[in-house]
Amino acid sequence: MYWTEFFIPTNKEIPADAKIPSHQLMIRSGMIKQESSGIYSWLPLGFKVLKKIEKIVREEQEKAGAIEMLMPTLQAVELWKESGRYDGYGKEMLKIIDRHNRFLIYGPTNEEQVTEIFRAFVKSYKNLPLNLFHIQWKFRDEIRPRFGVMRGREFLMKDAYSFDLNEEESKKSYYKMFISYIKIFKRLKINTIPVVADSGEIGGSLSHEFSIITNTGEGQVYCDKRLFDLELDNDDLNNLSDLERAVGNYTQFYSATEDKHNEKIFKEKVPEEFRLKGKAIEVGHIFSFGEKYSSPMKAYITNKEGKNVSVYMGSYGIGVSRLVAAIIEYSHDKKGIIWPNSVTPFHVGIINVQADNKECLKVIQEIKSEFEENNLEVLVDDRDESVGKKYADMDLIGLPYILTIGPRDIKEKKVDVKFRHTDTKENLSIEGAINRITSLAKEKTRS
Amino acid sequence: MYWTEFFIPTNKEIPADAKIPSHQLMIRSGMIKQESSGIYSWLPLGFKVLKKIEKIVREEQEKAGAIEMLMPTLQAVELWKESGRYDGYGKEMLKIIDRHNRFLIYGPTNEEQVTEIFRAFVKSYKNLPLNLFHIQWKFRDEIRPRFGVMRGREFLMKDAYSFDLNEEESKKSYYKMFISYIKIFKRLKINTIPVVADSGEIGGSLSHEFSIITNTGEGQVYCDKRLFDLELDNDDLNNLSDLERAVGNYTQFYSATEDKHNEKIFKEKVPEEFRLKGKAIEVGHIFSFGEKYSSPMKAYITNKEGKNVSVYMGSYGIGVSRLVAAIIEYSHDKKGIIWPNSVTPFHVGIINVQADNKECLKVIQEIKSEFEENNLEVLVDDRDESVGKKYADMDLIGLPYILTIGPRDIKEKKVDVKFRHTDTKENLSIEGAINRITSLAKEKTRS
Repeated sequence: MYWTEFFIPTNKEIPADAKIPSHQLMIRSGMIKQESSGIYSWLPLGFKVLKKIEKIVREEQEKAGAIEMLMPTLQAVELWKESGRYDGYGKEMLKIIDRHNRFLIYGPTNEEQVTEIFRAFVKSYKNLPLNLFHIQWKFRDEIRPRFGVMRGREFLMKDAYSFDLNEEESKKSYYKMFISYIKIFKRLKINTIPVVADSGEIGGSLSHEFSIITNTGEGQVYCDKRLFDLELDNDDLNNLSDLERAVGNYTQFYSATEDKHNEKIFKEKVPEEFRLKGKAIEVGHIFSFGEKYSSPMKAYITNKEGKNVSVYMGSYGIGVSRLVAAIIEYSHDKKGIIWPNSVTPFHVGIINVQADNKECLKVIQEIKSEFEENNLEVLVDDRDESVGKKYADMDLIGLPYILTIGPRDIKEKKVDVKFRHTDTKENLSIEGAINRITSLAKEKTRS
Repeated sequence: MYWTEFFIPTNKEIPADAKIPSHQLMIRSGMIKQESSGIYSWLPLGFKVLKKIEKIVREEQEKAGAIEMLMPTLQAVELWKESGRYDGYGKEMLKIIDRHNRFLIYGPTNEEQVTEIFRAFVKSYKNLPLNLFHIQWKFRDEIRPRFGVMRGREFLMKDAYSFDLNEEESKKSYYKMFISYIKIFKRLKINTIPVVADSGEIGGSLSHEFSIITNTGEGQVYCDKRLFDLELDNDDLNNLSDLERAVGNYTQFYSATEDKHNEKIFKEKVPEEFRLKGKAIEVGHIFSFGEKYSSPMKAYITNKEGKNVSVYMGSYGIGVSRLVAAIIEYSHDKKGIIWPNSVTPFHVGIINVQADNKECLKVIQEIKSEFEENNLEVLVDDRDESVGKKYADMDLIGLPYILTIGPRDIKEKKVDVKFRHTDTKENLSIEGAINRITSLAKEKTRS
């Protein structure tokens, strides 16, 4: 892609209402634009990152056996009355009246709707287990939307819903999702802490939040850093004891939110060098809630004995749009964003020092093609701007590898490469640079 | 994919409220489920088709130089007051009041919002031409939603918006989109008729509808069949005269909606054997409307002379969710849907005659892998159901190639193949069937 054929409206100014780095950087790099309070447009650069995160989430959920579908954004109010959540949800629920004076809501979550789908079609234990997920826009009418897409009102969420015959089977589904979440966050290159959680408005007995620590999180979290060094074998785990063991590898380490934190146990269990505390951003939340919805909503199945029983359910959310901001909070410096290879909008940026030099343009085009043949995406800054402005913008938008090419470089078949992750520069042969970057980018995007 | 690991709730019964074949077949094949009046969930099979259509639309729009982004579903009312459309749009516009008593609307289209984005960032003719598109859920509060997703309330639309310096440049953008639409519909295997159209609520002077003729359309359309035999060269056209010539190839043939139809001219211009008339379903609509929005909304750019002028705009819509139904209206028989290869949820269906025969299962698994290595998607009906039920369901869900495998076939290394497009059957060697189907499926999915 050439910069002049794309649409990246970068900005030097820090917007006055943006209080945290991710919000500032997403505005400054032309990734998003606010349309109303807590409601954003995703400009092309931001949209690319959003889609890459979505793709990783989708792939890992499918590998774990979940099936994708799509529920609508607007829901019938009646379902929420059946489940008993209509009155409890409060003002965050956006209520809508249509032209026939019927009430709808903009879905903040989909437990009721998916239970309705389940009960319409599934009648027997023989069709279980079942896990349905969708990636759809949701709305929560936050009283004070802030921090950009971190706490917006219209947001993109992946939510999966498991249906099982009984508690044991339901636990298996829960653990599968736990492991799938670990895999997703590993591919996104963020160190995520699973913490036992309150189940809040969703309800249920078993629940974990997945959080990352950054300077701008909203609640304190405490954990044992050794969590981050755990390796997952990539085999698909299918029986309960294997799954329990895999999950146990994570839950054996101390982790707690502020309200559940016990300083004495923390110090006993965690050697000093591994103690970590900081402010947390929640990026995922999983719940096992048994019959909480299926019982009032009469989502019954026949069990092996031919008896009607309520199906056991769980729900599993990931804030896809929030993750864009969370990754930036996690990975940036004073100059701008530093994207992990797995979600970067482009892998390679190329700065043309002399925008009107045709020989340079030709060599750049060849380099671009070679990267693209290796499945790396390239952004060429071909604008008629100063080199300083081009450097600053490349740093701002956060591409991992930045090549600078001028007339002298071409003669020597050399190129300056900046490695954004390590903030280092090297002068390499053109071929050497292509090979090195291709192998680095591939290694780091591997799932 | 194995049927028992997927979620396809098929149904023999024709739903009472479904009046047209596509609505009946989408419900019966488990593609969609109605959630409220005119609001549907897309179950996994329907979702797969929706995504495949979306992908074709995206690829062709990008090839034509349009840049993808994503605007939110909810919009600020103020923009619609600026453009002057707030009062005119009527009851189809879904108005929403949030917790702070601010008005929002669920976007029925995005001319205002995209104009706001443009004027925030683009100030000079040097940044033109620009074409931004998104694929997002929209809402129109139809007084009588009907025909399933054909005339639903919450619907998925691709809408692109072009920005140009002047009328001539704007025409170029319009023609580019015209040609891109022809390419999209060719890949979707529907014969689409471009008809000069009224510009209605969008406004403007130049407008075409793209319609297909089916038994269940809503307005009469007349055309010259020779339209459908035109070949597009795949070169990217970039100058106005080439584009005019390419578009002129299509517009030289007679086509008209009922209100503009002139029977005398129709008979003069179109030899009898090429005359076609029938009921039309609109699947795309393009508009060139100059300064209609940019002028009241003050979307100004500086031209070459340094003068501030209103930017010239156009908008280009395709009903992505409606296309799923439109393709079915276009391509089905009494037994069910007949998917074109380009959007079929799976290319190949395999019926295991004896669900518990392990030898059969093993051979089927091998055949499935071989198809998948050739990038074809396979659905194996491994349910414990009668062969009759499996046949009926395969016909219903409309996969192009259906293999039936039983113990006798395995011994003879043969397989029964049903070609759904021609409703013919052949007994082929297993290898022969794989090669034949792979080459047929690839030929027909080629863009």
